[in-house]
Amino acid sequence: MSKPYIVIIAGGKGERFWPQSRAPRPKHLLPVVGTTPLLTQTLARVKGLAPAKNIFVITSAIQARAVRSVCRGIPAANIVAEPVGRDTAAAVGLAAALVGARDPQGVFAVLPADHVIRDTKSYQADLRAALAAAAAEPVMVTIGITPTEPATGFGYIQRGVAWRTFGGRTLDRVKRFVEKPALAVAQQYLAAGDYVWNAGMFVWSVPVVEAALARFAPELDAGLAPVRAGLARGRPLAPVLKKLYPKLPKISVDYALLEKSDNVVVLPSSFDWDDVGAWPAVVKHCTADAAGNVTRGLAVVEQGGNNLVFAEGGHLVAVLGTDDLMVIHTADATLVCPKGRAQDIKALLKRVEALKGGARWL
Amino acid sequence: MSKPYIVIIAGGKGERFWPQSRAPRPKHLLPVVGTTPLLTQTLARVKGLAPAKNIFVITSAIQARAVRSVCRGIPAANIVAEPVGRDTAAAVGLAAALVGARDPQGVFAVLPADHVIRDTKSYQADLRAALAAAAAEPVMVTIGITPTEPATGFGYIQRGVAWRTFGGRTLDRVKRFVEKPALAVAQQYLAAGDYVWNAGMFVWSVPVVEAALARFAPELDAGLAPVRAGLARGRPLAPVLKKLYPKLPKISVDYALLEKSDNVVVLPSSFDWDDVGAWPAVVKHCTADAAGNVTRGLAVVEQGGNNLVFAEGGHLVAVLGTDDLMVIHTADATLVCPKGRAQDIKALLKRVEALKGGARWL
Repeated sequence: MSKPYIVIIAGGKGERFWPQSRAPRPKHLLPVVGTTPLLTQTLARVKGLAPAKNIFVITSAIQARAVRSVCRGIPAANIVAEPVGRDTAAAVGLAAALVGARDPQGVFAVLPADHVIRDTKSYQADLRAALAAAAAEPVMVTIGITPTEPATGFGYIQRGVAWRTFGGRTLDRVKRFVEKPALAVAQQYLAAGDYVWNAGMFVWSVPVVEAALARFAPELDAGLAPVRAGLARGRPLAPVLKKLYPKLPKISVDYALLEKSDNVVVLPSSFDWDDVGAWPAVVKHCTADAAGNVTRGLAVVEQGGNNLVFAEGGHLVAVLGTDDLMVIHTADATLVCPKGRAQDIKALLKRVEALKGGARWL
Repeated sequence: MSKPYIVIIAGGKGERFWPQSRAPRPKHLLPVVGTTPLLTQTLARVKGLAPAKNIFVITSAIQARAVRSVCRGIPAANIVAEPVGRDTAAAVGLAAALVGARDPQGVFAVLPADHVIRDTKSYQADLRAALAAAAAEPVMVTIGITPTEPATGFGYIQRGVAWRTFGGRTLDRVKRFVEKPALAVAQQYLAAGDYVWNAGMFVWSVPVVEAALARFAPELDAGLAPVRAGLARGRPLAPVLKKLYPKLPKISVDYALLEKSDNVVVLPSSFDWDDVGAWPAVVKHCTADAAGNVTRGLAVVEQGGNNLVFAEGGHLVAVLGTDDLMVIHTADATLVCPKGRAQDIKALLKRVEALKGGARWL
């Protein structure tokens, strides 16, 4: 097959990593785990799967500048900013248009920018198998993550019968997609053994995506027609996107296309995976002290355990007598929050936004 | 009587107000309560009791510079730095030498620099009565604070029979001094009604202090002889102090003199008083929000109550989902600690000291 394409979706808001993450510098632009931004790690991880000129990054206008500075080696034209967020279906439609303008039969993977995956070898082998499958057959390949716990924060995919094998990897048919389940249901899925997490990693060809858009999302498909026309005529993309994007329907690709299609297959991943959804999830990638405290920068914990204490810029954060607390210090803002309350950060950020000049911390 | 003298003892370490307080800038140099340093508030409070030339401030070498900058209107020669701390008996001996050099019969009050007292009128009336008593009779007058709770952090003074009345204030004889009691004992004292707190406020004359030093603390008395001799000859004080201070016995004035003397009387205070011993004590001088949170600077508390959150310099401190926590943010260090653990700060500071270059935060 001709060289495949990789489209990295780098548009998240990253509120859950506040105060390190801000609107113009969200999670994938931070070294939340490791020493480089997660987007940099993602770009390194796909290296070799496709030539740099075949790699696209779809980001948001507010992040575009920072994303460009991270995407060294990727042609500037391949970094495309959505003027407003329109969820993943629009991003996938844009991706298909971008790839289709280069190769109308092009096979491409859509991959999130902000996951942590260490086993690059297995990751690439899985993706090569998925790309081969999508090149060989008109299918939508989802990479399913083998669950390690009854997570309630992800959608699940129930695997059906085995479909075909590519590159030593057997892909299964998909029995059904399910939305984020309640804990008891998630526990059943985990016990059943035939469910995998939907991690937003998809591999398919331009014709397959375009056919699905035309059939299941005609409004979105029509809305994106000027993008395809503009790309075909070599016109600058930004003005076109700016005009049409606000009018596109806001819908997830799972809901718009995958759940409605009957040609979806799933490749159960063979690599480790962590979406690192919020600060407390960082802990398992760090080395803790004997009391379970994880620190970065100048941090001291006395008489307390299982705390997460990050300090930036030579500032000292000293924690005394607390357990299971997280303290995240940045140059202009500090968050103090029990680890178990990390999910309530949106409510806190509403309060911050209401401060006089509060937008500068968001 | 001739004009009295006031000697303010401004030498505390202030560890309990870390990280705002540091060795060169301890509690009495901070606006822990109110908008000016506590020492400034103390100087304002004694205004009118004695002329500025009769006011001395005894501080420590490391704080001298900052203390001088706060003591506007006080003659520079009246601000005396102890080269090393030798507890309160040495400071009182030094005070007696300083006052005695001006007036061998001088009456003086020794007052701490770091207490919070709002009722200046009653305070001055009490002190005037105490000064009158000390001018009239060879007694040691202690100002006893009427207890408001069974505090275990102060020594207590048991009042005896009424002694004499000055300026409408009746002073009592002292039955005994007691060290910081256990809670159950403190509760008995509070119920008994004849105990007051020893707040380190003493009023007496030079001859009374010198006689007590000679009788009960001859080593200290002899050690201070060169100070008296130097002052009598108009010699610079600093070199003398530097030479002899390290050799002085380190002992409290309560233990060295008061507990051993039979001429001690007590004036139960008629003013409000708070020694504001640590961060949590600040709360009762502040206005809390509906959830009991006290904040200063740019602080937000969401879904939590009874927190104390102070932020300096335009930095935002955002607290989510905690109760009874204190977060004190300064330009170079932040403390996070449950209010109930504030007394363990010394252990934390040992850890800070052990950091590479840790001394810069102390």
